[in-house]
Amino acid sequence: MSLPLQLTKSGQLKHFLSIDGLDQALLTEILDTAESFAGMSEHQVKKVPLLRGKTIVNLFFENSTRTRTTFELAATRLSADVLNINIATSATSKGESLLDTIRNLEAMHVDMFVVRHAISGAAHFIAQHTAPHISVINAGDGQHAHPTQAMLDMFTIRQHKKQFAGLKVAIVGDILHSRVARSQIRALNALGVAEVRVIAPKTLLPAYVESMGVIPLHDMHEGLRDVDVIIMLRLQKERMNSAFLPSEGEFFRCYGLTEAKLKLAKPDAIVMHPGPINRGVEIASSVADGPQSVILQQVSNGIAVRMAIMTMTMGSHGASV
Amino acid sequence: MSLPLQLTKSGQLKHFLSIDGLDQALLTEILDTAESFAGMSEHQVKKVPLLRGKTIVNLFFENSTRTRTTFELAATRLSADVLNINIATSATSKGESLLDTIRNLEAMHVDMFVVRHAISGAAHFIAQHTAPHISVINAGDGQHAHPTQAMLDMFTIRQHKKQFAGLKVAIVGDILHSRVARSQIRALNALGVAEVRVIAPKTLLPAYVESMGVIPLHDMHEGLRDVDVIIMLRLQKERMNSAFLPSEGEFFRCYGLTEAKLKLAKPDAIVMHPGPINRGVEIASSVADGPQSVILQQVSNGIAVRMAIMTMTMGSHGASV
Amino acid sequence: MSLPLQLTKSGQLKHFLSIDGLDQALLTEILDTAESFAGMSEHQVKKVPLLRGKTIVNLFFENSTRTRTTFELAATRLSADVLNINIATSATSKGESLLDTIRNLEAMHVDMFVVRHAISGAAHFIAQHTAPHISVINAGDGQHAHPTQAMLDMFTIRQHKKQFAGLKVAIVGDILHSRVARSQIRALNALGVAEVRVIAPKTLLPAYVESMGVIPLHDMHEGLRDVDVIIMLRLQKERMNSAFLPSEGEFFRCYGLTEAKLKLAKPDAIVMHPGPINRGVEIASSVADGPQSVILQQVSNGIAVRMAIMTMTMGSHGASV
Repeated sequence: MSLPLQLTKSGQLKHFLSIDGLDQALLTEILDTAESFAGMSEHQVKKVPLLRGKTIVNLFFENSTRTRTTFELAATRLSADVLNINIATSATSKGESLLDTIRNLEAMHVDMFVVRHAISGAAHFIAQHTAPHISVINAGDGQHAHPTQAMLDMFTIRQHKKQFAGLKVAIVGDILHSRVARSQIRALNALGVAEVRVIAPKTLLPAYVESMGVIPLHDMHEGLRDVDVIIMLRLQKERMNSAFLPSEGEFFRCYGLTEAKLKLAKPDAIVMHPGPINRGVEIASSVADGPQSVILQQVSNGIAVRMAIMTMTMGSHGASV
Repeated sequence: MSLPLQLTKSGQLKHFLSIDGLDQALLTEILDTAESFAGMSEHQVKKVPLLRGKTIVNLFFENSTRTRTTFELAATRLSADVLNINIATSATSKGESLLDTIRNLEAMHVDMFVVRHAISGAAHFIAQHTAPHISVINAGDGQHAHPTQAMLDMFTIRQHKKQFAGLKVAIVGDILHSRVARSQIRALNALGVAEVRVIAPKTLLPAYVESMGVIPLHDMHEGLRDVDVIIMLRLQKERMNSAFLPSEGEFFRCYGLTEAKLKLAKPDAIVMHPGPINRGVEIASSVADGPQSVILQQVSNGIAVRMAIMTMTMGSHGASV
Repeated sequence: MSLPLQLTKSGQLKHFLSIDGLDQALLTEILDTAESFAGMSEHQVKKVPLLRGKTIVNLFFENSTRTRTTFELAATRLSADVLNINIATSATSKGESLLDTIRNLEAMHVDMFVVRHAISGAAHFIAQHTAPHISVINAGDGQHAHPTQAMLDMFTIRQHKKQFAGLKVAIVGDILHSRVARSQIRALNALGVAEVRVIAPKTLLPAYVESMGVIPLHDMHEGLRDVDVIIMLRLQKERMNSAFLPSEGEFFRCYGLTEAKLKLAKPDAIVMHPGPINRGVEIASSVADGPQSVILQQVSNGIAVRMAIMTMTMGSHGASV
């Protein structure tokens, strides 16, 4: 489905909408390109002129300072000009259609849309209808996908585990509502890990989740045994009072990651979380801040991975940094 | 009135507040300068260093993401630094007077104010009281003027019609409340078109509108006959429930531009609209997206025209691009 | 207390949190560095590449367009990249702790936090817990300190009076709630003025104010006699209805600066105010706009002083401009 949309005829990345349809070679190319940017942050001057004169529009229909910030920093460090448009509070309040908003920005000769939207498929829709010279990056759409988050997670895993073959990975928490989990599962399988387990109460697992290539489990003690990587998901507090979940305390007791439960995993297992973390809800502070946590490295890697995806979609395939 | 204010003694553009008082030669100079910037958007690097080190303040007392965006892009492509100040939500909430806000920004050595204000005359007031080294551009003041919009419209007309002499232009819709229409009428007459018609119900025409050099008409069939250019105005929906107008459907039936009515104009007539458009209210989608529509070209031209006005008022008269 | 925190072992400025613990030599170094930037505003291109590639985060937990603007301009003129984060409206709304917000931004390899917070000590707290490569600048914390404001005031005083020795300075108004006054008193005493007087009703003076090295007075006629510098504080209107104060008119009559009262000071006394001014509340318009007022020069100097503090804390000690 998305394959013809996000790739050029010669198989290069044109948009970045979803992990679906991207093969191991392309995902590895993204990770390798990100590698070349990862060292840059240590430099005295953290900028390269790869996208100088390009205009990147952060088109946020859903407010997310955190995600916007990482894209803004990535764009700035590539010397692009950034235009932040918070649609929630502005433009379309005059009743303009999404397509007319896009057409107008295109006419201003912008080069890229970074799209965040509460509705699944919004970034795809924009990519389908935008001008050929514009690239679209999905910065999270509804419960569908958050592919740049998944790629920074893959980068972090590779950084610590060197290769994906043979790895056992557990994803824990609200799989049902998580666009992050959906993208991670696709990426992990495409990159060839041995096993992806999803651990959650039945109410927080999608129906037919096995069809995504995962092993569903309801018990942490069973699920964490001998894994190399543990990915904790953020518990959306707004779901807490719903029928999905009993209480924060109850959830933490069953599915929170504590030092005791962490011992079930391999001794060199790494602990990941997309942030922002709820301390004492899905993860104990001692684990989040502990020696096996790579949560802040994920944040750092997020800049490099987004720089890679931006340059690749814009046709500048990671020129020498 | 505004002539001595917006021109230097030698007749060069110092502020850009209104079309009033600007003669054909100066308006033509703006269009010619914009021409030199219009090609730039195709370049790999869309920036020129003409205003490097200059600080341009977007001083918006009225929220308008759309207009702010075009000025921000124009300034960025001239390599200026842009400071966005949304007064509605900030600064003067501490009760500071407009003049004190201006004095403070002047003291920070900024170089230009781009002013949007709900009150007619606000940009003039600021230009009258600001320091001599600062230029003021009117980005829309009350129901008075929106001169950069008018100039991008003139640019678009010239692009398609080559010259203004002999042209018949119809402006359709809510003339009474439109700062855009007021500025367009001045510009069209200064540039020497043959005829400007304004088409609207009586309740949406200003009294003594003929004194502005236009022919008022109440019927589209009469008004559109043989025109070269049709400019549709946006219908402010907030006026809909007032005494001015019957209903959306009724308005569209009488004054909306359809393919059938468009046939009354010359076969090569162009259709313009300042945006954002209300599809099915003042214009049919098939016309807005049709072959005679130049609506998106207007948006593109808006960047070039604003770059021209910024460099001219700052004394850099369109150096080689 | 703050001495070991804001200085390196070799005594150089690492953070800028408070005037406390900074000696005359260091304060003078700040003023001298600012001097080298003060001339820049006159240049055609108002930028130097001293902080190119650095990322400066305006971390505002309290909204202040005015203060944010001065830091943004200072950073931009040093060629740094600026990230504005308004925490009030965003990020921590998801319930993330302050420390987690800081850790995340650190992980994005930012270089400086400019912190504004309603709670006294917030900037210190962040400086205590942030990564070693990051500098923190206090842009106002609760009723504690506003040290960059104090330094721009010192710069303005030196500009007019050449030296601090022998000067008599009066600070007038709501001393009790003013972080500005607290920082000014420290700076004036560290720089060796002859006398600092604080003039206010008893309800607006802190207990034991004498221990700060000032002479408390309740009467303007006594307090202004023969002073070289008068610093008026802004009256926070929100305190007006409290028990602290009678009425605006009453306050102006007793503690407002009029031309008549100004005559009590030395003939060449200068009048200062941190802004925004309440005309007719703490200061008469004729005085604010009069020949002895240096209020707008304070604003101009604010940019240069903040550029100096930014470059000094970042280890670029005022390289040639």
